[in-house]
Amino acid sequence: MSDKAYALFEEQQQARGIRLEEVKARLKELKIETPSWGYGDSGTRFKVFQKTGVPRNPFEKLEDAAQVHKVTGLCPSVAIHIPWDKVEDYGKLRSHAESFGLRIGAVNPNLFQDDDYMLGSVTNSNEAIRRKAIGHLLECVDVAKETGSKDLSLWFADGTNYPGQGDIRRRKRWMLEALSEMYKALTPEMRMLIEYKAFEPAFYHTDIADWGMAYNYAVKLGPQAAVLVDTGHHLPGANIEHIVAYLIDEQRLGGFHFNSYKYADDDLIVGSVNPYELFLIFYQILNAANDEDTAIQSSVDGIAYMIDQSHNIEQKIPAMIRSVLNVQTQYAKALLINHDEVADAAGRGDVLGAEDAVRKAFEFDVTPLLQAVREEQGLPADPMKAYLSDSYPNDILGRGKGGASW
Amino acid sequence: MSDKAYALFEEQQQARGIRLEEVKARLKELKIETPSWGYGDSGTRFKVFQKTGVPRNPFEKLEDAAQVHKVTGLCPSVAIHIPWDKVEDYGKLRSHAESFGLRIGAVNPNLFQDDDYMLGSVTNSNEAIRRKAIGHLLECVDVAKETGSKDLSLWFADGTNYPGQGDIRRRKRWMLEALSEMYKALTPEMRMLIEYKAFEPAFYHTDIADWGMAYNYAVKLGPQAAVLVDTGHHLPGANIEHIVAYLIDEQRLGGFHFNSYKYADDDLIVGSVNPYELFLIFYQILNAANDEDTAIQSSVDGIAYMIDQSHNIEQKIPAMIRSVLNVQTQYAKALLINHDEVADAAGRGDVLGAEDAVRKAFEFDVTPLLQAVREEQGLPADPMKAYLSDSYPNDILGRGKGGASW
Amino acid sequence: MSDKAYALFEEQQQARGIRLEEVKARLKELKIETPSWGYGDSGTRFKVFQKTGVPRNPFEKLEDAAQVHKVTGLCPSVAIHIPWDKVEDYGKLRSHAESFGLRIGAVNPNLFQDDDYMLGSVTNSNEAIRRKAIGHLLECVDVAKETGSKDLSLWFADGTNYPGQGDIRRRKRWMLEALSEMYKALTPEMRMLIEYKAFEPAFYHTDIADWGMAYNYAVKLGPQAAVLVDTGHHLPGANIEHIVAYLIDEQRLGGFHFNSYKYADDDLIVGSVNPYELFLIFYQILNAANDEDTAIQSSVDGIAYMIDQSHNIEQKIPAMIRSVLNVQTQYAKALLINHDEVADAAGRGDVLGAEDAVRKAFEFDVTPLLQAVREEQGLPADPMKAYLSDSYPNDILGRGKGGASW
Amino acid sequence: MSDKAYALFEEQQQARGIRLEEVKARLKELKIETPSWGYGDSGTRFKVFQKTGVPRNPFEKLEDAAQVHKVTGLCPSVAIHIPWDKVEDYGKLRSHAESFGLRIGAVNPNLFQDDDYMLGSVTNSNEAIRRKAIGHLLECVDVAKETGSKDLSLWFADGTNYPGQGDIRRRKRWMLEALSEMYKALTPEMRMLIEYKAFEPAFYHTDIADWGMAYNYAVKLGPQAAVLVDTGHHLPGANIEHIVAYLIDEQRLGGFHFNSYKYADDDLIVGSVNPYELFLIFYQILNAANDEDTAIQSSVDGIAYMIDQSHNIEQKIPAMIRSVLNVQTQYAKALLINHDEVADAAGRGDVLGAEDAVRKAFEFDVTPLLQAVREEQGLPADPMKAYLSDSYPNDILGRGKGGASW
Repeated sequence: MSDKAYALFEEQQQARGIRLEEVKARLKELKIETPSWGYGDSGTRFKVFQKTGVPRNPFEKLEDAAQVHKVTGLCPSVAIHIPWDKVEDYGKLRSHAESFGLRIGAVNPNLFQDDDYMLGSVTNSNEAIRRKAIGHLLECVDVAKETGSKDLSLWFADGTNYPGQGDIRRRKRWMLEALSEMYKALTPEMRMLIEYKAFEPAFYHTDIADWGMAYNYAVKLGPQAAVLVDTGHHLPGANIEHIVAYLIDEQRLGGFHFNSYKYADDDLIVGSVNPYELFLIFYQILNAANDEDTAIQSSVDGIAYMIDQSHNIEQKIPAMIRSVLNVQTQYAKALLINHDEVADAAGRGDVLGAEDAVRKAFEFDVTPLLQAVREEQGLPADPMKAYLSDSYPNDILGRGKGGASW
Repeated sequence: MSDKAYALFEEQQQARGIRLEEVKARLKELKIETPSWGYGDSGTRFKVFQKTGVPRNPFEKLEDAAQVHKVTGLCPSVAIHIPWDKVEDYGKLRSHAESFGLRIGAVNPNLFQDDDYMLGSVTNSNEAIRRKAIGHLLECVDVAKETGSKDLSLWFADGTNYPGQGDIRRRKRWMLEALSEMYKALTPEMRMLIEYKAFEPAFYHTDIADWGMAYNYAVKLGPQAAVLVDTGHHLPGANIEHIVAYLIDEQRLGGFHFNSYKYADDDLIVGSVNPYELFLIFYQILNAANDEDTAIQSSVDGIAYMIDQSHNIEQKIPAMIRSVLNVQTQYAKALLINHDEVADAAGRGDVLGAEDAVRKAFEFDVTPLLQAVREEQGLPADPMKAYLSDSYPNDILGRGKGGASW
Repeated sequence: MSDKAYALFEEQQQARGIRLEEVKARLKELKIETPSWGYGDSGTRFKVFQKTGVPRNPFEKLEDAAQVHKVTGLCPSVAIHIPWDKVEDYGKLRSHAESFGLRIGAVNPNLFQDDDYMLGSVTNSNEAIRRKAIGHLLECVDVAKETGSKDLSLWFADGTNYPGQGDIRRRKRWMLEALSEMYKALTPEMRMLIEYKAFEPAFYHTDIADWGMAYNYAVKLGPQAAVLVDTGHHLPGANIEHIVAYLIDEQRLGGFHFNSYKYADDDLIVGSVNPYELFLIFYQILNAANDEDTAIQSSVDGIAYMIDQSHNIEQKIPAMIRSVLNVQTQYAKALLINHDEVADAAGRGDVLGAEDAVRKAFEFDVTPLLQAVREEQGLPADPMKAYLSDSYPNDILGRGKGGASW
Repeated sequence: MSDKAYALFEEQQQARGIRLEEVKARLKELKIETPSWGYGDSGTRFKVFQKTGVPRNPFEKLEDAAQVHKVTGLCPSVAIHIPWDKVEDYGKLRSHAESFGLRIGAVNPNLFQDDDYMLGSVTNSNEAIRRKAIGHLLECVDVAKETGSKDLSLWFADGTNYPGQGDIRRRKRWMLEALSEMYKALTPEMRMLIEYKAFEPAFYHTDIADWGMAYNYAVKLGPQAAVLVDTGHHLPGANIEHIVAYLIDEQRLGGFHFNSYKYADDDLIVGSVNPYELFLIFYQILNAANDEDTAIQSSVDGIAYMIDQSHNIEQKIPAMIRSVLNVQTQYAKALLINHDEVADAAGRGDVLGAEDAVRKAFEFDVTPLLQAVREEQGLPADPMKAYLSDSYPNDILGRGKGGASW
């Protein structure tokens, strides 16, 4: 059936002027980084439910991540979090990854789980604490050197819960000082990806609260700094694809932390709440990829796609497979947009025609396309089924409960 | 200075037709229940910061609560949470409370921290788990009997994170079954206060998501059931005072869990984000207290005022003192509203005049009034100062770190 | 190509255990009412852009509505708004509709465009204005009798902009009085559909602000009253499908006003912002349609599907065609959910499996199915194309600018 | 009584270390610009209620504005909107203003009420329309020259309602082109104040959607461009005072359009929803005014305080008086913050102490202070009463209904 389905799909898309070989080539280039912490236990402030089979150390997290890559072919790199993934010998961690065909991806400093950081890390009014926090940032640059990582993903929980608790403008300056010191330590191939978040765990003000603040820091730092968009870090109603398009146009979109939200930073599986939004994000990215300006094109090439979620109640590895498949699905759909058709309608002021030209691509079922691509890549046609019918899910139960968590 | 200040205040208010003796009488009747868990450590999903001096058991929590009552005169009862406050002998806990002039207030079941409840407690599709959850509800009724508590505060974390995860309507019916079984176990003086919450920890649907659902259960259960309004459990923009007025008019407002929020369920100190909103809630309550209908009046009398917050970064006891003082302050201001003046302006269609008649009361400084009331009650004029200059804050440091938390 | 596509689709769905004949039967039964006012000019508070070809009177609105029904087969009824569609002879309006195979649908009173209603209509503190407003409600019942309408759709703009401007509880009682008086005037076949709205045009409180208030009125009135859910009338993040499921379970879901929103009551084309949400609403409806309880089943049968949007910048008739097609598409997708598969996974606590069983149905391309259904009904396979290639769009340009608007 | 009250107030504040002479001096320097359009009729998309006595032309609007200044002493300038305030002879308009002791304030172009602008003005894909829009911007610079205005306030309604309708990045570039062309036309004393808005009237994307976009344009344009913060133009929960502090620190806060909101851009009277938020905005401004950096200080001096509201149901002139008094009140309260006390507590990590030091100032009743200042300035102690007891409110009724509106 799947051959027939693909043949029909091909016929349909060719009739629309879509070049399927190009679509397939782009699909084969798609890479989505998974986070080591996404394989461990997580929860809400009310409860962390412990699952059986959760990895007990950074090495086992890589083993789980390798399973995701094995069945999807999409996830050759794994982001790490320091100190959650602190090991004595990062060379060994790197070799372990490489033994599975993986590499270590972005290095994520952790500046929110130490008692010292209760009132801020790099923006703490206490200079010694700021120095300690900066020290950790520099340590992470060193870790990146050892693991061969190119990206440093920076999320700061820093902020305040009450007016007066901190001097907003002074904290802003301390943030710049810390980022500047870290920036100087980067090697030329490295990038600093600066994340923003509207709220949580700070509930009055967050030092880097929106894309504008992250962007402004990036501009002040230099070309190796860019903005990291976590899709769950916005106020209600935010048009994320607008922000994405804007940052690409400024050549400052460094990457994504993908996840879904309905209310706040719910950290649900990406694509599970409003899949159309994810599609529209890729629409903006692909629109820019087609730009005549080569600077814009290469800016798009540099976008790092990363998952960052909390699988509070889900089985961890299947949840990650689901996530990357959802991203792949929406990316594939966005590749079916006929940009000329959109532009023609828009140019005529045909609002409904332009909207239709975009939405239409979303409505195609891309299963035959994805199966064809997987087949060409020697991957299982149904990655989830392949994983679940393997012995691995059962094998890891031997790890017991009480593995890694945050 | 404070005598002069009060004399001036009296002169001002009398000129406005405010009967200060009545205002003072009402202020002396105000009671605000503090929660035992508000004295322990709490945090966000990212980190619970441990404080030195936090109580190590339910008995010490009561001792801390006694300090708040001692300096404010406002907090003669303390809500407990089972099993956080589980003790072998509740009679002993009750006596301990009474030895400080306190009584045990609302009993709060906990149906969200057991592994069994990951996919629901009373709405779990597994009957054994539902039975277990109902068993806990009934246990809490028993605890209430032993502690002499009249109110059972019910918050259910039950809900789902994804479409399909649970059958919404079936869960609705299981909820009613559980509530009904508990209702039957109540003694005639007891009340069930049913709380609602828009989201968190469930991020797709929450079984009791809004006041309408809580209210509907209350109506189906009978006259001993009412709605508990947690001021942080709404969607952005909700007009809480409207809900309050509505519930009072239906004689189904059971009480409040006070706290403040700017974004989601931030659980900040009540009155710290938008104090005017708290004032407007009391405006609705006092408007109803003046109603000619005695059923409405007595409905108002039954409202339980309770604090429910997370003092993640604050000193616990001072945070609680601050909270009850903020409630007292806004209540005092609301007592200065001249309802006739509001009604006259509104009746004439004078929008600005009516708004002014309400807001004007908010703008008075009620410090002289509150100091006068405290003096008449033999309480310290400045409760916070009184607490901080006592030896207690220092004494409890001996408890060390790692006390109670949730 | 479309035959091959349908054959493949049939094969796929049969393999999943979906009974396509039943699916098709249900699709043929789907009816979506369009609003007369949706064919006229509308806008924002900043500007109403006038389009050429907009209908100049209620009769021309029906003619436009007939076009939508002609190409989609989905829209045999048209809602009217009084006084926008006030005519001397409603029998004539009805005959005009019938001459196009249409009938007059819900009658919508207008209580927000008269100077008298500035501070409220049925909740105005001025008794004469309340009487006038009730008079209009009764007039609309009479119109319904003449037009043969069964539903009265009630949206009240009533509310306040400032605290104190109106007495919330008294207004609540006046609302009940007005609704009760109207209820008594209904003939036994008629229904009152009570709409709610969080805000706009009232910006402090709206008298019927949420489903809970509308529901409570319906319960107090009697079995002929039910709730009307306008999908754009909620606070940010509201789980609309939860409300839908809840109301069905109480047998009080009267119908929908469909439209889409990203921010506030944006009134965009239904299905254009988050099509998955629309699908999830139908999932809840179809889940209830499968309920063993025949009362629930027949409650589902009574749901009125209606469009209510503002086509500020779109061509009116094509916008309406797009809207009903979007509803049909999501309904068709929801019909592909295998409810047993969902229930099985959910029953096993397989969160990911249950979610997948729902989402999977959304990912199918239902174009072949819809084309097959249309063919069987003698309708054009592509309704939009059929309309646009007809002479009608051109013919109506002769109407000029300055037609109906609100 | 007011003398006694002020004496007591003085005693209190001196005890706190507040220098009242400085406070008074700053209060006397406060200037709040009122908008000409705030004196005319306005409404929602549902209805514009026409008031009797509304000004019929720009000259009468100035006369009304003069009344507000006469009783408050706060409003010596009036913003105008072109073409709403288009006159043949702007010199005459200016003289008319000067005859009342007023001057013409910011000039506001209107690029949203012409049919050509339905799909965008300066970001329209049609070059002729873009040229027309830029022409209007340049015309407004000319108007500013004639009226002696220094500020050009730029709000663009430009945006889209649906994905695909416009090319977001191309529109971004057209926006920059238009702004750049206007910037070149400015005289050296002029400023461009760039406003942003999250949504409405565009409901998918707005070309300048947030402060970050407005700021980025300002930076690209040059030192005469700055950001205009309309307090109602944010997504739910936005921390406006954080944005204010951030922009001041970048020396790019040009000014405010003050109003209040609970839900969306409700345009209610400033200070009527959450007066504490307005106070906290002034807290950030005054914190910066005390900065040692003279560049920051002078940046604060340049902030333009302007009202921009819709008085849909209020009497226009009293609504404006209420608004400026609310701003003055919160400014006065913010002047009572003891910044050293805040900094001390914050420096010690005393979260509660720092919060208290800020909030405490809010709780003072500043009526005696404001009355003293007014007395020293020869102004009526109660401006609202002074206005209402004058003959003016009655005199203007002769203008009848149907005056200026938008």
